[in-house]
Amino acid sequence: MKNIKTIAFDADDTLWVNEPYFRKAEEQFCALMENYLPHHSSHKELFAIEIKNLPLYGYGIKAFTLSMIEAAMSISNNTIPLSAIEKMMDIGREMLTAPVELIDDIEEVLQALQGKYRLVMATKGDLLDQERKLEKSGLAKYFHHIEIMSEKKVLNYEKLIQHLDIPPSQFLMIGNSLKSDVLPVLELGGHAFHVPFHTTWAYEQVETTIEDERFRGLGKVQEVLEVLL
Amino acid sequence: MKNIKTIAFDADDTLWVNEPYFRKAEEQFCALMENYLPHHSSHKELFAIEIKNLPLYGYGIKAFTLSMIEAAMSISNNTIPLSAIEKMMDIGREMLTAPVELIDDIEEVLQALQGKYRLVMATKGDLLDQERKLEKSGLAKYFHHIEIMSEKKVLNYEKLIQHLDIPPSQFLMIGNSLKSDVLPVLELGGHAFHVPFHTTWAYEQVETTIEDERFRGLGKVQEVLEVLL
Repeated sequence: MKNIKTIAFDADDTLWVNEPYFRKAEEQFCALMENYLPHHSSHKELFAIEIKNLPLYGYGIKAFTLSMIEAAMSISNNTIPLSAIEKMMDIGREMLTAPVELIDDIEEVLQALQGKYRLVMATKGDLLDQERKLEKSGLAKYFHHIEIMSEKKVLNYEKLIQHLDIPPSQFLMIGNSLKSDVLPVLELGGHAFHVPFHTTWAYEQVETTIEDERFRGLGKVQEVLEVLL
Repeated sequence: MKNIKTIAFDADDTLWVNEPYFRKAEEQFCALMENYLPHHSSHKELFAIEIKNLPLYGYGIKAFTLSMIEAAMSISNNTIPLSAIEKMMDIGREMLTAPVELIDDIEEVLQALQGKYRLVMATKGDLLDQERKLEKSGLAKYFHHIEIMSEKKVLNYEKLIQHLDIPPSQFLMIGNSLKSDVLPVLELGGHAFHVPFHTTWAYEQVETTIEDERFRGLGKVQEVLEVLL
């Protein structure tokens, strides 16, 4: 831990609330489909289509909107009224203009670490939408570098760490996803702290127990300060 | 010109063909709408909706697909058959999986410059889609750095040049858009070469005559070598 010089923070559900907006949108989608299928089945179908589309569309709200439309056509066997498609477009637009709600105490944590560590934001998803949220959040001033990746894979972390011009042993990643924020960074020889958020997308969930001296599982983001200061 | 150390290439319609795929998709869209409006009117309506959506959706094929669907609903006064919406989703998918066709002689130009200059790719648009095209193009090996921006504004070029750790006078941008590739870079004190492509999106067109010793208007990309080698 003493080696750590640069701390990268995940954005969605680490700096600001994200997943609940998707949960709410899924609920709205299932409500629009209830003439065709019960909620849990529509939910399952939408998830399957999202995962199928991931290599083509990537992450983010535009991808999600297109997947909702595709799922609605599939579930309704192409009989969904156009007004429902229009509502799905509205759901997407609302998500893209939603307010940015900071995670409890995150600004206090960034303030306390600032100057002592080089701080980075490292997230995946849609470029424009992540920039929009960063700007709305008011947190941009804390970060020396912003990295928006198409996918949080080992190779992408490797490029980021190279770009930061440090050995992996000086790099710490903090995030809510074991799959995206923790495992690839540990694999590279970096440090990773897991700060779970109450809602996690099924696709990000992994069943694993991590035993590694470069890993910490924390209850909330303020505990970062107890470990690092 | 003697100062130039780093050359950034625009990607769409500078490294590979892009705009003709959008032109073809617009034709397909207008054909789907011909029961409602003549081609040129549908085209105009689609363009207006794309521009309206730009701040929300940004550039790229997913944004374009969502704008087609919105335009179809608007033009048809919500009477478009679902099968037409499905075809628009297909048009988007086809664009996202289209082959990458290199611009004439671009690889020869990159090969000739490699080693003599630091080469960078600087483009705007959708992160995942630009990465896909770069990978398919086989050109990734020529570039020291890849920059994908949400918008090619002065501020974004400023960040890129800072990141490259050079004064603007050592930076040359080569691209097909006066608006996105040339004007912001000249404003910063960098060099810019304009290599027009036969098809330019209306939104990228500007009426201007540039008189600047840091600017060159070239007929084709190979002429870059005559100026730089």
